[in-house]
Amino acid sequence: MTQPFHPPATTGAEARLAARSGRLDRHTSGQALGHVQGNVVILPAGLATDFMRYCQRNPKPCPLLAVSDAGDPSLATLGEGIDIRTDLPRYRVWREGALVDEPTDIRALWQDDFVTFVIGCSFSFEEALMADGIRLRHIELQRNVAMYRTTIATEPAGPFSGPMVVSMRPMSAADAIRAVQITSRLPTVHGAPVHIGDPAQIGIADLSKPDYGDAVEVRAGELPVFWACGVTPQAALVQARVPLAITHAPGAMLVTDLLNRHLAAF
Amino acid sequence: MTQPFHPPATTGAEARLAARSGRLDRHTSGQALGHVQGNVVILPAGLATDFMRYCQRNPKPCPLLAVSDAGDPSLATLGEGIDIRTDLPRYRVWREGALVDEPTDIRALWQDDFVTFVIGCSFSFEEALMADGIRLRHIELQRNVAMYRTTIATEPAGPFSGPMVVSMRPMSAADAIRAVQITSRLPTVHGAPVHIGDPAQIGIADLSKPDYGDAVEVRAGELPVFWACGVTPQAALVQARVPLAITHAPGAMLVTDLLNRHLAAF
Repeated sequence: MTQPFHPPATTGAEARLAARSGRLDRHTSGQALGHVQGNVVILPAGLATDFMRYCQRNPKPCPLLAVSDAGDPSLATLGEGIDIRTDLPRYRVWREGALVDEPTDIRALWQDDFVTFVIGCSFSFEEALMADGIRLRHIELQRNVAMYRTTIATEPAGPFSGPMVVSMRPMSAADAIRAVQITSRLPTVHGAPVHIGDPAQIGIADLSKPDYGDAVEVRAGELPVFWACGVTPQAALVQARVPLAITHAPGAMLVTDLLNRHLAAF
Repeated sequence: MTQPFHPPATTGAEARLAARSGRLDRHTSGQALGHVQGNVVILPAGLATDFMRYCQRNPKPCPLLAVSDAGDPSLATLGEGIDIRTDLPRYRVWREGALVDEPTDIRALWQDDFVTFVIGCSFSFEEALMADGIRLRHIELQRNVAMYRTTIATEPAGPFSGPMVVSMRPMSAADAIRAVQITSRLPTVHGAPVHIGDPAQIGIADLSKPDYGDAVEVRAGELPVFWACGVTPQAALVQARVPLAITHAPGAMLVTDLLNRHLAAF
């Protein structure tokens, strides 16, 4: 997975072309700044209704940005010319809940009953927080955000259920208050935090041991602030042991033509 | 200060008439529910500009709802027929920073250079919180809210300066997040909290010993949430040792004709 240096894409179309050509084969952080990126889940049509119902019932971890028609690899509302079979830098293929492959292209696996779900991603609200002057430690340290399985249960739908996964960012109290305001405006990218403060209240025993991503220090005088996380639906897929599912690889998102600033609800 | 039972007023005009007639001579909590109540400061014109500048520079503790013309006891934008000399249940008269009297009428003290300032009050946002289902312990216990002097300095203006005074309400994390959202919509009644969590960060040594009002317990699993408080300008007046100032007595507010729900910024 080597990646020679290329300047980051400045538009969604450029980022997708870089992924399609194989030039971009890892994470999309820093690509097409200002543009909405999305988590991707692809399922056979027989599971699509239950999965959509799961997203609808759990809007904070699973805010749906788009759902494709069955068999149609385009997503016209998210960008011109998107081909979801080629436009992610890297995919994960799951069979019966087990990760079996991480290809950079899924044309060979495509089925004419596949439905694509695109789910809002924290990159959008992190950009809004940083634009406001709030510093994000995991970004300054060039780490993945720390994520945890919680004891908050999601609302089940069909075979899909499981714990809410949250991401955590340490902040001063003043920044935490401002972050609630900023992210409340962005309901399609996880919205307001789900918890502030004591991790034990949501079943997290040790902040230094995240279940996904990398730990960051919570310094004296800081509060851990927790947001619902787009890993939640992936965890539900794995737990459901569906026969076949394809997702983006961690951090290798769909870069869209939408602008983050257009997501604000007010 | 006995107060025979009367049913609470249902309009601002009724509450003011009750105060004017002497029938209502204590706090206005529960009067004219749904109507905006305000903190009152009355100063000679020579101090008015500096005090207005102080409010302008400190909008969270001192959100100005109205400023009268010099010598004019009416406040037309807040209610029909208001006479600020008679329409508060009880006043406090301050000379050189010392409390010298607590009359129920200030007609005998009125000067033709007096300017009245009306400042937003937490009663408005507490109503919005409770309407949303957030329980407020001090109200359930029928106590005054706990208030504390902090180490957060206000922006000085002329003779006015001093520490920000905050009110504290204990809440679950989920309620604290919701409370940030609700009070952010209400910038004219103190707006979003100024702090959440560790009281020591804002110079409060012991939550069980408030500087004003009554202590309430912060239970395990709760966060103390702190809002800028309308006592701040009163503390600044006292600290400035102005020759003469008149304020409302604690809890004995001006009841206006404005509706709390009309304060929402969005």
